[in-house]
Amino acid sequence: MPSISIKGLHMPESPIRKLVPFAENAKKRGTKVYHLNIGQPDIKTPQIALDAVKNNTIETLSYARSEGSEEYRTKLANYYANHNINVTPDNLIVTTGGSEALLFTIGSITDAGDEIIIPEPFYANYNGFSTASGVTVVPVISKIEDNFALPKIEDFEKLITKNTKAILICNPGNPTGYMYSKEELQKLKEIVLKHDLFLIADEVYREFAYDGLEHTSIMAIEGLEENAIVIDSVSKRYSMCGARIGCIVSKNEAFIATAIKFAQARLSPPTYALIASEAALDTPQSYFDDVKAEYVERRNTLVSELQKIEGVKVANPKGAFYCVAELPVNDTDDFAKWMLESYNYNNETVMVAPASGFYSTEGEGKNQIRMAYVLKKEDLIKSVEILKNALATYRA
Amino acid sequence: MPSISIKGLHMPESPIRKLVPFAENAKKRGTKVYHLNIGQPDIKTPQIALDAVKNNTIETLSYARSEGSEEYRTKLANYYANHNINVTPDNLIVTTGGSEALLFTIGSITDAGDEIIIPEPFYANYNGFSTASGVTVVPVISKIEDNFALPKIEDFEKLITKNTKAILICNPGNPTGYMYSKEELQKLKEIVLKHDLFLIADEVYREFAYDGLEHTSIMAIEGLEENAIVIDSVSKRYSMCGARIGCIVSKNEAFIATAIKFAQARLSPPTYALIASEAALDTPQSYFDDVKAEYVERRNTLVSELQKIEGVKVANPKGAFYCVAELPVNDTDDFAKWMLESYNYNNETVMVAPASGFYSTEGEGKNQIRMAYVLKKEDLIKSVEILKNALATYRA
Repeated sequence: MPSISIKGLHMPESPIRKLVPFAENAKKRGTKVYHLNIGQPDIKTPQIALDAVKNNTIETLSYARSEGSEEYRTKLANYYANHNINVTPDNLIVTTGGSEALLFTIGSITDAGDEIIIPEPFYANYNGFSTASGVTVVPVISKIEDNFALPKIEDFEKLITKNTKAILICNPGNPTGYMYSKEELQKLKEIVLKHDLFLIADEVYREFAYDGLEHTSIMAIEGLEENAIVIDSVSKRYSMCGARIGCIVSKNEAFIATAIKFAQARLSPPTYALIASEAALDTPQSYFDDVKAEYVERRNTLVSELQKIEGVKVANPKGAFYCVAELPVNDTDDFAKWMLESYNYNNETVMVAPASGFYSTEGEGKNQIRMAYVLKKEDLIKSVEILKNALATYRA
Repeated sequence: MPSISIKGLHMPESPIRKLVPFAENAKKRGTKVYHLNIGQPDIKTPQIALDAVKNNTIETLSYARSEGSEEYRTKLANYYANHNINVTPDNLIVTTGGSEALLFTIGSITDAGDEIIIPEPFYANYNGFSTASGVTVVPVISKIEDNFALPKIEDFEKLITKNTKAILICNPGNPTGYMYSKEELQKLKEIVLKHDLFLIADEVYREFAYDGLEHTSIMAIEGLEENAIVIDSVSKRYSMCGARIGCIVSKNEAFIATAIKFAQARLSPPTYALIASEAALDTPQSYFDDVKAEYVERRNTLVSELQKIEGVKVANPKGAFYCVAELPVNDTDDFAKWMLESYNYNNETVMVAPASGFYSTEGEGKNQIRMAYVLKKEDLIKSVEILKNALATYRA
C-alpha cells in the first residue's frame, strides 16, 4: 500500500448510484431491471431542441460566455417572467446543470466550517456539494406522516448558529414530492430576514405541480430580493438530463458578482447543450400539458398500487416525480441490494434508492425508499408487483 | 446595503476574462479587437466530430454514466496507449472539461488548509480551483531568462510542509510554452516519492510539441504509478473548447474511487459533447500535422515580430500556443486595459492577458503579458504592429 494519503474520503457516496454495479450484474445474469432509482425520465425531449442541435452550423466548437450569452439569458428572463419571476438577464448565470449552480452558490456564500440548514429527507447530492466546499449540512427533519411538509419554524430556529449561512429547500421536493405553500415560504422569509441568511430554493421541478396546485417561487416573494437564490436546470423541464445546463437566479448583485468568478474559472458551459436549451424555450405549452397528465397518471398508479401492499406507508407527492415510501423492513439499503443481487420475479427485478442517503441524521430513513415514477404506467404496475413479492420473500 | 454576508470574495478574478467588458466597449465604439488574450483557437474542429453530433439519433437526451461510458473510456485508453501512456478504462474518469478534472482531483487529495506547490507563472484558474477547495497555492518561481524551465529542485524542497499534498505542473506549459524534459520529470519524481506527494500534470497540450521535441507524460515514468495524476481535455487537441469534455488519468485506485464520488455527485458529463469527443478519436493524423505546422508558423511569426520591438523580451515556446513577453512598462494590467479603453491604431486594437494573474507571488509578472497565438499569421503581424505602436504612445 502506498503511504500517500487520499483526502476527500468523507465525500459521501451517491445513494442513487451506489447500487449501479449490482444492477449491472443482475443484467449480466439476464434479469430485467426496472429503474425507479434515478430521475431519468423516459419522456421525449422536445423536437425543437433536438432539431436545433442537429441543424447546427458550428465549424469551430468554441467556448461560450462564462455566464451564458446575452441572448440566452434574455430569453431565459422572459421564460421566468411567464412564471411570475421578474428578473433581468444580469440576475442570471448559466451553469453546467443544476449541480454546478449549487456548487457555485455554496462556494460563493460560505467558507469552510459554515453551515447550511436543509429539511430532510433532501436530494442526496446537496451533501456532496456541501462536503466539496467544506460546509456542514445541518438537517431539520420532516415526517412522512405530514407528507413531508415544512418542519416547524422553531425547529429551524433552534439550529441556527453564528456559522449558519443559508436555508436550502427543494420545491417541489426531491425526494418527497412535497410542494411548499405560500404560507410556508412566508415563514421561511421571516426567519432568513431575522437571521440574515440566504434562502436557496432548488426549483428545477417547477413545471411538475399537480392537483391544481400552483408553484410559488421564492423569487416572487416581496422583501426577499437580497436573500433569495434559485437553483434551476433544463434537465427535468425538457427531459434533457444529459444537456447539463442549469441556471442561478438572484437579485443580490454582490452574490452574482462572486458566483461569476466561479463561472469564469471553469470557462464555459457546454456549447451544444446551450443550443438545445435556447431552442427548448420555444417548446409549446401542449408539451408540458401532455407531460404533466402523464406524470399525474403515473403518480396515481404508483401511489395506489403501493397502498395496496400491507405494511407500506406512502407520502402523496404533489409535485416533481418522486415518492418516498416506508417499507416493513429494517434496512432498505440491504433490501434494495438484495433485490438486485439475490432476487428475481419471473426474471425481473426493481432498483430503488434506499432513503438513508437522503437523510443526514444517522439512522433516519432506514426503512424508507425513494422511487422515481419515470417509467410508463404498465412498468410501474409491474414494478410494484415485483416489490410486493420481493417484500414477502425477503421478510420470510 | 444588506447585512447578509457574501463569502468567497477571495475567489480570484480570471486574468483572461476580467478585461472582457472593456473589450466589449471597444467593439461598441467600432474598434476591431484582436483577441490574443484567450486560448480559443480559430482552427476548425475535425469534421468527423461535428458530423457525429449533427447525425445523432437521440430522442431523450439522457444522463451519461458519471465516469463516462465503458465504450468511450476503452477508446480513450487506446488513444493513450498510442501516446506511450498505458492505462485501462478503469484508470480514467471522464469530466466536464479539464476544469472539472482539476476540481475533482484537488477535492479528492486535499482538505481545506492543505497546500499545492506550482511553478509560476501558471494557468490562472489553478488558483480558482484551489481557492474553491480551500487549498493554498504555494508558488515556486520560474524565470523568463531560463525560458521558464523547471526551477531548481531545492526551491521546491524548501517549500514542502506537512500540509503539502501535491506538485502541479502544466506540460507543455500554459502560459509559458515550456516543455519539461525527461530529466526534469525524473527530478520531480524523486521529490514526490521522497515526500509522498502527488504529481499532477496538466497535459492538455500534449499534441502541441514543436521543434522535434517529444512530449513525455508523467504516466510514462516508471515508479510514479501511485503518485501520478494527469489532467486532460479535448478542448485544445480537437479545437473544441466548447465541448467541455476532459479526463482524469491515474493508476492510483484509491484516488480514482474517491474522484468518482465527486463525478457521481454532479451526475454526468454533457451527452452531446461526449458524442463529439468519442467521434473525434478517429481524427486522422493529417489533421494534427496540419495544425502543428500552422502553430509553428504562427509561433515563429509572433516571436520574431515581438523580438523586433525595442525593450521587449520574449520566451521561446516549445509547445502549447502561448508565449509570455516582458514589456517595457511597469504595469501591464494598466497597459492592457488602456489598449482597450483609450487606444486604437487605425481603428484596431489588441487584447492581451496581463501576466500578473498567472503569478501568485504578489508583484511578480507585473511587466509581463501572455499572448495566445491562436490567430492567423497576418492577424498576428498586425497585432504586433498595433502593440508596438501602443507601447510607443503609452510610454510617451
